[in-house]
Amino acid sequence: MLELIDQRRLPGEFVTLLVRDTQQLHEAIRTLAVRGAPAIGVAAAYGPVLALQTLRADATTVDGLKTIVEACEFLATSRPTAVNLFWALDRVRRKAQAVCRHSRLTLGELHEAILAEANAIRDEDVAMCRAIGRHGEALIRDGAGVLTHCNAGALATAGQGTALSVMFEAQTKGRSFKVYADETRPLLQGARLTAWELQQAGIDVTVICDNMAGWLMKEGRIDLVITGADRIAANGDAANKIGTYSLSVLAKQHGVPFYIAAPSSTFDLSIAGGDEIPIEQRESSEVTRLAGVPTAPDGVAVYNPAFDVTPAHNITAIITEKGVVENPDAVRIRRLLGTP
Amino acid sequence: MLELIDQRRLPGEFVTLLVRDTQQLHEAIRTLAVRGAPAIGVAAAYGPVLALQTLRADATTVDGLKTIVEACEFLATSRPTAVNLFWALDRVRRKAQAVCRHSRLTLGELHEAILAEANAIRDEDVAMCRAIGRHGEALIRDGAGVLTHCNAGALATAGQGTALSVMFEAQTKGRSFKVYADETRPLLQGARLTAWELQQAGIDVTVICDNMAGWLMKEGRIDLVITGADRIAANGDAANKIGTYSLSVLAKQHGVPFYIAAPSSTFDLSIAGGDEIPIEQRESSEVTRLAGVPTAPDGVAVYNPAFDVTPAHNITAIITEKGVVENPDAVRIRRLLGTP
Repeated sequence: MLELIDQRRLPGEFVTLLVRDTQQLHEAIRTLAVRGAPAIGVAAAYGPVLALQTLRADATTVDGLKTIVEACEFLATSRPTAVNLFWALDRVRRKAQAVCRHSRLTLGELHEAILAEANAIRDEDVAMCRAIGRHGEALIRDGAGVLTHCNAGALATAGQGTALSVMFEAQTKGRSFKVYADETRPLLQGARLTAWELQQAGIDVTVICDNMAGWLMKEGRIDLVITGADRIAANGDAANKIGTYSLSVLAKQHGVPFYIAAPSSTFDLSIAGGDEIPIEQRESSEVTRLAGVPTAPDGVAVYNPAFDVTPAHNITAIITEKGVVENPDAVRIRRLLGTP
Repeated sequence: MLELIDQRRLPGEFVTLLVRDTQQLHEAIRTLAVRGAPAIGVAAAYGPVLALQTLRADATTVDGLKTIVEACEFLATSRPTAVNLFWALDRVRRKAQAVCRHSRLTLGELHEAILAEANAIRDEDVAMCRAIGRHGEALIRDGAGVLTHCNAGALATAGQGTALSVMFEAQTKGRSFKVYADETRPLLQGARLTAWELQQAGIDVTVICDNMAGWLMKEGRIDLVITGADRIAANGDAANKIGTYSLSVLAKQHGVPFYIAAPSSTFDLSIAGGDEIPIEQRESSEVTRLAGVPTAPDGVAVYNPAFDVTPAHNITAIITEKGVVENPDAVRIRRLLGTP
């Protein structure tokens, strides 16, 4: 059984969701009970483990491997944009296939092996978050105004977040600064989750509507923007929550540096540029209803892309657990990742 | 008694608000039951008329004039940014002062005179809306994608709107086009009012979240942006609903023309530039609660400016009832308005 914070109900209620099988896990990812690219990856990694636990006692190792592969294929259909999901599922599947090459492996040993792999993904995520924070914290100077979008905090990872980890580490260094959190329509992850996390941590946070960000830059309130990312192409183009692209354009026009904080598992070197990143389109009701209250006339058309793509040339630097890539491009990114 | 559509309850309910005195009118303007710069002006013009109607039967014309002046001063405190409010109140007050210069004017005649002035403001507004539409309609070509923000439609005026009038007149010419309506946080005038008006008129409308606008421009869906304005300085800097400034920057970066449609009463030649326009700050609860449902953690700080200022150099043209000012600046604006 997997225990997740049900992020759909924050900050009003802190409720734990108990996930028993891959069907429930798929649903939890699809409906954003668990969200944030790294957190989706970690949660999904436990999916094949849950799947194995549903097998009958007399099942064979071959049955087990088949179940794992099917669970990975099924969970990969839960959301299309964040690459950490596919990355984590691939890791667990490859681990299972590798250990199954050994003869006389029992089903119990297979279970142990993939549970260990899921735990490793989780533990690495915790360490990765700290490392991202440490690599980025110097960017937040005392008295700075920091703008962030959506939620790239502890709730989006297994650790202390990506973009928010940079803020937590700057706080640890004794710096004081002001964070503006875009509320992030339609699902308000900024107002609900980021504001809540920063408030809990004692960081000065102010919620704004997404359409105010450019005006705040004009007023000189914003010294830097930091967001997370859901998938980064080989050339540095980064998919992130809808609205990030506009922020990057506005930041550039106002001379405000724009940073992405993300683990190296967010890079998808199999795609050359952002044009190839699939953009999830979500239900119109996310825009036209809020907590059951209609916010638009019945039957009106809605366009609801969940993500957009920020071109690399709008990104000042990408902060990863392996270091910082300034002016990201294909060569600098491969150098950082140590990929030939 | 003044009858207003209660815009706070649209599109869920179509309710008429009956306003009996200046106190209720002040409240209706302050709480946005009536909103939109021209509509505020027209509604406010009837305020001194309502005030006169509360006088005792034995009141003198001097009492009447004093009541009118006080009503104008009081109503001018209802909202700070839109200049049409002050313009309409000034017109009624000046009319009252002018007719009172004649000897032997009865209170009944004073009442008639200011009622006629309020009616004239309303009738001129209707004509002005049509004229704006006719001056602007050619900008919307067949098959165009049009983006608008907030509500600059019939609900924002006594007539058929400003920005939306341009769309209605283009429709009259038989052109078909697609309108994207920014939902316009925090009060959702775009989703609630603009989408409703366009839907009623049979114009193809799609609601988007404010943070999607830049991405739609990137995708090539937007051929022009048209919004209203609440106050335009002598140099062409235009205050409008928060988020308009960001749209203007995004439009410029994507080579999309950006138009303001507004009556000439929106110009405030007493101020040189947009820096001098007072920006209304509104309550945090507009951002943190929606229909009573909390959307952010308790006690979180909020920054909630109701307007921002778009610099003239981001505006392709201003469409007024007197004609169109391209590349607006102080000289071109004075020429259009016929002011020396």
